[in-house]
Amino acid sequence: VSTSKDGPPQLPDHLRPGYERLRAGAAEILPESSLAEKLQLADQEGRPLRVKLGIDPSGAELTIGHAVVLRKLRQFQDLGHLAVLIVGEFTGMVGDPSGRSATRVQQTAEQTAANAATYFDQVMRILDPDRVEIRRNSEWLASMNLADVVRETSVLTVAKLLERDDFAKRYAAHQPISLSEFLYPFLQGYDSVAVQADIEVGGTDQTYNLLVGRDLQRAHGQPQQAVLTVPLLEGLDGVQKMGKSLNNYVAITEPAAEQFGKLMSIPDSLVVRYATLATDLRPDELAEIGAAVAAGGSGAGTAKRRVAAEIVRLYHGTAGATEAEVGFDRRFREREVPTDVPEFGLPGDDPAHLPALLRAAGLAASASEARRAITAGSVRLNGDRVDAAVLDLPRAELAGRVLQLGKRKAVRLVG
Amino acid sequence: VSTSKDGPPQLPDHLRPGYERLRAGAAEILPESSLAEKLQLADQEGRPLRVKLGIDPSGAELTIGHAVVLRKLRQFQDLGHLAVLIVGEFTGMVGDPSGRSATRVQQTAEQTAANAATYFDQVMRILDPDRVEIRRNSEWLASMNLADVVRETSVLTVAKLLERDDFAKRYAAHQPISLSEFLYPFLQGYDSVAVQADIEVGGTDQTYNLLVGRDLQRAHGQPQQAVLTVPLLEGLDGVQKMGKSLNNYVAITEPAAEQFGKLMSIPDSLVVRYATLATDLRPDELAEIGAAVAAGGSGAGTAKRRVAAEIVRLYHGTAGATEAEVGFDRRFREREVPTDVPEFGLPGDDPAHLPALLRAAGLAASASEARRAITAGSVRLNGDRVDAAVLDLPRAELAGRVLQLGKRKAVRLVG
Repeated sequence: VSTSKDGPPQLPDHLRPGYERLRAGAAEILPESSLAEKLQLADQEGRPLRVKLGIDPSGAELTIGHAVVLRKLRQFQDLGHLAVLIVGEFTGMVGDPSGRSATRVQQTAEQTAANAATYFDQVMRILDPDRVEIRRNSEWLASMNLADVVRETSVLTVAKLLERDDFAKRYAAHQPISLSEFLYPFLQGYDSVAVQADIEVGGTDQTYNLLVGRDLQRAHGQPQQAVLTVPLLEGLDGVQKMGKSLNNYVAITEPAAEQFGKLMSIPDSLVVRYATLATDLRPDELAEIGAAVAAGGSGAGTAKRRVAAEIVRLYHGTAGATEAEVGFDRRFREREVPTDVPEFGLPGDDPAHLPALLRAAGLAASASEARRAITAGSVRLNGDRVDAAVLDLPRAELAGRVLQLGKRKAVRLVG
Repeated sequence: VSTSKDGPPQLPDHLRPGYERLRAGAAEILPESSLAEKLQLADQEGRPLRVKLGIDPSGAELTIGHAVVLRKLRQFQDLGHLAVLIVGEFTGMVGDPSGRSATRVQQTAEQTAANAATYFDQVMRILDPDRVEIRRNSEWLASMNLADVVRETSVLTVAKLLERDDFAKRYAAHQPISLSEFLYPFLQGYDSVAVQADIEVGGTDQTYNLLVGRDLQRAHGQPQQAVLTVPLLEGLDGVQKMGKSLNNYVAITEPAAEQFGKLMSIPDSLVVRYATLATDLRPDELAEIGAAVAAGGSGAGTAKRRVAAEIVRLYHGTAGATEAEVGFDRRFREREVPTDVPEFGLPGDDPAHLPALLRAAGLAASASEARRAITAGSVRLNGDRVDAAVLDLPRAELAGRVLQLGKRKAVRLVG
C-alpha cells in the first residue's frame, strides 16, 4: 500500500468504497496507512479481520454516544469482518476502589456480570450478532501471575505512561495516581495480544491505551494492530460529553418519542455533528444538511428534524421514527408551542431568573412586565404554564425548551 | 516511650544498653522513636522481635561492606531477637532483564539458587545460626495473581515512587524506567507483610524500599515496622562505594594476610569510618582512634594497624589476626619497606607518570633525576623494583602502596 500525499492510499478498486466508509467519521487512524494495509491483507489472505472493541460493562445504559464506536464496528462487520468484543470483567472487578475485602470483590463480580448482560442486549441492537466473538478478559488475566506481570510490564515505560493525558494532568496537579492505575493500560493492551487483534477501535479518550496494545503485540512478536478512533459525541447541551450524570443523553433503548423530542432540543450548532457521528447518512446528504443549517431559517429546523428522524430510525425503524415525528408535532400543536422559532443562548447564571431571561430574550420589554405576564399565566415552557411561585429555574430544565410569552413571542433556549 | 529533645528515648534501664548499641553506627531510624518502642514492646510481650533483612543473592562474594548490616543484625540476635532473612529468589529470577523466555528463566532460577547457597555459607560466619529464620520470597510472591497485584499496588502512588532517588534522577535525565521496575519496591515491601516484620534493616540506599514495607503493612492492618538503616562503606580508595567491579574491596572469606594488607593500604581519612562501621570497637575505643588519627605521625599508623587487626579478627579470630600482622611486618621488613611514612595524595592523572609522581611527592628534585633513579633500579613500589620500561602505571596499582626512592625517601600513596 502506497500513500500519496494528497489522497487516500492506493488500494485496489474493490476495497476502496469500504475503506472510505470506515475512514469517514473516524478521528484518527494510527499509523495512517495501517487500516488500508489491514484491509488489503485480509483480502489477500481471504479471511476476516479481527476488530477489537473493549467494553466497560459498568455503565448499563447505552447512549447514542456509546453507539458511535459500535456503529463503526458494525461497518466493519458489514464488510465481512469479525467484531471481537472484550468484556472487561476482570478489569472492572479489580478496578472497584472499594473492592478491598474478598467479600466485596465477590459482590462486585456478580454485579459486573449482571451489568454486562444488560449491556449485551443493547449492543446487539447495533451489531450483527452473527459476526461477533465475545471474550471476557478474565479468561487470560485471571490466570496471570506476578512473574508474568513483571515480565510483561518490562516493555512499558513510566515516562510514556505519564504522557497519557489524564495521568499527565493529575501528576502536574499533584493528585495521587496509584501504581495499580498504571497497570490498567497494560491490562487493556494485553487483551489485544490475547485475542490477536488486527484492528482496535475506540473513542479518542482511549487512544493511548490502544497504542499500548501495539507495544505489547510487538513484544510478543505479533503483527501490530491498526488503531482507529472515533470522536466523542457531545451531549444534548452541546458542551459536555454525553453522559448519564449530566442528564444530557439519548439512550438507545428510550421510546422513539422521547428520543425525537430530546434530539429536537439540540442547538443548531450540533446538527451537523450529530448527523456525522450518530446517523448513517451519506457524505452528500451530510453536505446538504450542513448547507441548510448554515443558511438558517426554516431550512435549519427541517434539517434538524431530518437528523432526529434518522437517529430514531436506527433504533426504532422507519415506522417508529415517523410515528415519533407525528406525535411530536401533534403534542406541540395541542400545546400551541411554535416549532419554528429563533434560538436564544442561555446566559451563564444557574439557576436562571425567569423575568430577567424573558427580558434578555426580547420577549418582554422589562423584568417587571415579564413578572406581570408570569403572574397572569401567559408565560409557558414547552407549552406548560410557568409557576409564578418558582421564578428561578436550573439551566438543565431550560436548555432545549421553547420559552413563550403569549401566542406570538417565543424562543428556543439553548445551553 | 517519650523522647526528650536532647537525649535518647526514656527507656527502662535494662533496655538502654541494647538500644544504645543498636543505635550506634546506624544512619537513620525511621520513625525516630520506633526502635525504642519495638524494644519495649518485645520486652513487655516477652517475645523476640522479627528483624527482617532482604538479601540479594546475585553477588556471591560477601565483603566487609555487606557485613555492616549483617553485623547490625547480629547485634539484634545477641539481644535475643530473631533475624528473618529474605532471599529475593523470586525478585532475582524475574528481575533478570534477559529472562524473556521460559527456558532462560529456568536457568536463572537454578543459578539464583546456587548463588544463594554460597551466600549463606558466608552469612553464617557473621550471624548466629540459632536465631535465624530463612524465607524465600517466592513462597508468597509466586502464588500471587494479577488481581492481588492490582489490589496491593493501589496503596502506592506513582508520585511517591518517582521521589525515590534513583528513579527521580533517571526520570529527570529522560532515561527509561520500565513499569516492571516500579513493581520492585512493592515486591520488597510486600515481603514485610508476609513475614510480619517488626523491624527492617538495610543500607541507606534501601531507605525508600524499607518505608514502602510500612505502607503495605498499614494497608494490611499490621503494626508498621521500624526502619533502621546503616551507612554504605566506602571502598579501600575512600572514594567509591565498596564493590567487586572497582576492585576496592575486602572479602570476608579472604585469607587473613590479604585482608590485613589491604586494610593497611587505606588512607588515614578512612580509619575512623572503618573502625565505626566494620569493627566491634566500643565508643570510647573509637574516640581513642579518632584522636590518634587526628594527631597524625606514628600514632596514626598504629591506630590504622589496630583497626585492620580488629576487622581481620572478626573473620579469622585473634590468632589469625595476630599472625597476619606479624607476616605483614616480616614481609615489609624483608623488602625493606618502611611502614611509618607520610601519605601522599595521588594526583588526578590515570595512568600516573612515575617520574612526575616521584618529583611531585618530593622524593626526587626533578623528573629527570627520578628517571635516572628508576633506570638505576633504586625506585620501589611496596618493595618491588619498578620496571624502567613501564613508566605509566594505573592509579589502582599505586593507591595504598609505598613508593620508595633509595632507603630513606618514601611515601604511602593514597587515592
